[in-house]
Amino acid sequence: MTKQTIRVELTSTKKPKPDPNQLSFGRVFTDHMFVMDYAADKGWYDPRIIPYQPFSMDPAAMVYHYGQTVFEGLKAYVSEDGHVLLFRPDKNMERLNLSNDRLCIPQIDEEQVLEGLKQLVAIDKDWIPNAEGTSLYIRPFIIATEPFLGVAASHTYKLFIILSPVGSYYKEGIKPVKIAVESEFVRAVKGGTGNAKTAGNYASSLKAQQVAEEKGFSQVLWLDGIEKKYIEEVGSMNIFFKINGEIVTPMLNGSILEGITRNSVIALLKHWGLPVSERKITIDEVIQAHKDGILEEAFGTGTAAVISPVGELIWQDETLSINNGETGEIAKKLYDTITGIQKGAVADEFGWTTEVAALTESK
Amino acid sequence: MTKQTIRVELTSTKKPKPDPNQLSFGRVFTDHMFVMDYAADKGWYDPRIIPYQPFSMDPAAMVYHYGQTVFEGLKAYVSEDGHVLLFRPDKNMERLNLSNDRLCIPQIDEEQVLEGLKQLVAIDKDWIPNAEGTSLYIRPFIIATEPFLGVAASHTYKLFIILSPVGSYYKEGIKPVKIAVESEFVRAVKGGTGNAKTAGNYASSLKAQQVAEEKGFSQVLWLDGIEKKYIEEVGSMNIFFKINGEIVTPMLNGSILEGITRNSVIALLKHWGLPVSERKITIDEVIQAHKDGILEEAFGTGTAAVISPVGELIWQDETLSINNGETGEIAKKLYDTITGIQKGAVADEFGWTTEVAALTESK
Repeated sequence: MTKQTIRVELTSTKKPKPDPNQLSFGRVFTDHMFVMDYAADKGWYDPRIIPYQPFSMDPAAMVYHYGQTVFEGLKAYVSEDGHVLLFRPDKNMERLNLSNDRLCIPQIDEEQVLEGLKQLVAIDKDWIPNAEGTSLYIRPFIIATEPFLGVAASHTYKLFIILSPVGSYYKEGIKPVKIAVESEFVRAVKGGTGNAKTAGNYASSLKAQQVAEEKGFSQVLWLDGIEKKYIEEVGSMNIFFKINGEIVTPMLNGSILEGITRNSVIALLKHWGLPVSERKITIDEVIQAHKDGILEEAFGTGTAAVISPVGELIWQDETLSINNGETGEIAKKLYDTITGIQKGAVADEFGWTTEVAALTESK
Repeated sequence: MTKQTIRVELTSTKKPKPDPNQLSFGRVFTDHMFVMDYAADKGWYDPRIIPYQPFSMDPAAMVYHYGQTVFEGLKAYVSEDGHVLLFRPDKNMERLNLSNDRLCIPQIDEEQVLEGLKQLVAIDKDWIPNAEGTSLYIRPFIIATEPFLGVAASHTYKLFIILSPVGSYYKEGIKPVKIAVESEFVRAVKGGTGNAKTAGNYASSLKAQQVAEEKGFSQVLWLDGIEKKYIEEVGSMNIFFKINGEIVTPMLNGSILEGITRNSVIALLKHWGLPVSERKITIDEVIQAHKDGILEEAFGTGTAAVISPVGELIWQDETLSINNGETGEIAKKLYDTITGIQKGAVADEFGWTTEVAALTESK
């Protein structure tokens, strides 16, 4: 594939930046975005960085009707010495293509899109907040645009990358949350789209999430759709348990998303010489471990929250307090290490960070 | 709820209408569309009929990321004496609200939206084709529009109704198709969104459909996601089998869409005094019935194709020919009766049709 030049059109009216100490998640967007189009006879074409703006679509565009869309999420950070860092962005590009395959969306040139992403972040680097727990959230996504009501793969697509300065996913930073075990709704099933990062999985999760919130819980713990006993994910994160010294996470099975934070956590735990297993784990095993006093920690992992400790698990009428409702030692160490590597404060022994630009020239 | 007046803005440049004998499905749209907005503090507001046109959205609009969207499909027909008829549109409005509930989308006022739909069809009535097998396909849909990247229900929505003059779903009219039994991919599972008309179910089906088409089959027969043995749907239709005189369709179970054509077929079969059962049916029962020579017919039912006979069923390496690959007697009678009622040519004993307008004033 010949390298396509990325066209750049800068905004003439920069928007005011939000107070870095007042940031929430995903509500404010930067000055620019990356866009690229696809047509069956041209392939991906016209990669460009343009001012962030609404765009026009036909009401019959297939994404509105049949949900043919995929996305990714990653973050950029500024190090103390003013370098802009990305965390494992190659893994996001790789996973985007896995999702594309499942959703019948044409493959992207991973290097080209990553190059566009880096240029975009470099252009909007002054938007990266530097208060504790903040970062620049990066959302690449692809949507089907053909105006056609037949159920089939679209012949045209748009790929976007948009950027949002974000605070901690949970306002209080790392803080244990209450999780309810979901017994009615199912997020995904083997043979479905659970291991792809696509809209339908999230649409399907809204109802359970809403019911849980009404009862005062933060998220739900998803069980498998077949036997309703194996643990899959928590909210839109992967889940880990520490039971009698062993750290366990559900093995990938086709319906669990292969999280990049999950992968990083496993690598770190192994590096630290701690016992970590990817295996099937039932809700009964977790309940029994709690009864036996050996359920030592539980935490979710994901790009948005990084590490999210579980302080209470609600199962039927029982409330299980985990580690006295406090952040566990492993969760804390993982959070500090991963966010430290992401911000360049902890040595990056795995080569996970990629430098995009230095802030100096514009300071 | 106070009745809201529907604002009407007619187009000044009418588009040319397509040749009614050359129509395909869902590619051409009429001159106008119905639109209505929702905001958490206003409810549904500003119902309007405006020229069909692209519309502008923020790239962060939630529908692109988390697939919070629902839709419906129904048709308008012109009777021989020039009356515009809808087929059971109240059922579509009812189902739209069931889908809304599952997808955490606010309920619509069914009467109000139906009124908007009727006015729209009346305005664009000259677009209703009258060649054999043609009709005006009506697509109501709702999308989440809030620009927000958190996984939660949107606070703003848009409802659209768009219209497309369509030919037969299959070019040859009613004609038996080849169906492959799907053994890898799963469309939906109990606890998921299979019984809601939402984008994710269709996104999830594309891959299986694509693989089937490459092998020369029209559609796939979906088995349940749990035991992979119970028959659920065919493509995006419900499925019926005639086995030794009994007509069987899978019972509704939470993962099967409650089709309006399915419901009409059951009512007609009962009316005709034929034995019809809604029950669980395994693929093994169908295979065995074929071996025993008592698999007499198989057909799909749905708004787009009405009745779609299955001529061949491909199961692993076997090809089962059904009724010598020809349209069965029941399938034909159902097709003739339902399309006859829809076009006002057959007496409507069930009160299924609703008149929208007469064509006369504009002829």
